[in-house]
Amino acid sequence: MTVLKESETTPEIISPVFKRRIANLDNLMVVVCDFTNGPALEPDKPHSHHHEQISYVAEGELFLFLGNEKHRLTKGDIFTVPSDIPHCIQTISSFVRLVDSFSPVREDFLKR
Amino acid sequence: MTVLKESETTPEIISPVFKRRIANLDNLMVVVCDFTNGPALEPDKPHSHHHEQISYVAEGELFLFLGNEKHRLTKGDIFTVPSDIPHCIQTISSFVRLVDSFSPVREDFLKR
Repeated sequence: MTVLKESETTPEIISPVFKRRIANLDNLMVVVCDFTNGPALEPDKPHSHHHEQISYVAEGELFLFLGNEKHRLTKGDIFTVPSDIPHCIQTISSFVRLVDSFSPVREDFLKR
Repeated sequence: MTVLKESETTPEIISPVFKRRIANLDNLMVVVCDFTNGPALEPDKPHSHHHEQISYVAEGELFLFLGNEKHRLTKGDIFTVPSDIPHCIQTISSFVRLVDSFSPVREDFLKR
């Protein structure tokens, strides 16, 4: 069991505009993703993975591209991404925080 | 794939001070839990389950009781609850929102 206080955690810097914090158990991972590039001129590149994903919009506003759908989401909204469904986002607000849950664990995120 | 906009979703009312919204896939569930009883005079009753749990504090402040540990948590903090570890919370702020992720799915939450 682990407690990760935001005030005491150094986020992983993925790019100048994208930081994340990760917590995981054996079959469950949560990734807090902070995007500071908004509003983005275009969506990021669609990607997919076999891991199931459910995401919570903790801060900000964004467009979600999910399969062939496009949704405008804001704080408090939730979306599910079944295995292998292409998806991507485009930030609308300057700051966006997504809380992404995955099962199984994204081993690719632990190898960096 | 599902999009649950907070503005268009009726939460499930578990008690006068506890509402929740649920999203799930085959092996992953996210439950947005809103507590409006804070500050609570005492913790809720400790409970445990074989499902792995990771929680994100989306709003408010609370005490977390996790195994034999006690932590004061605030917005942005994360905690993990491995299988079968007793845990409970005590709200400190009037409003607390937790985003609880589970794997496997809490079938007991779907049967209500």
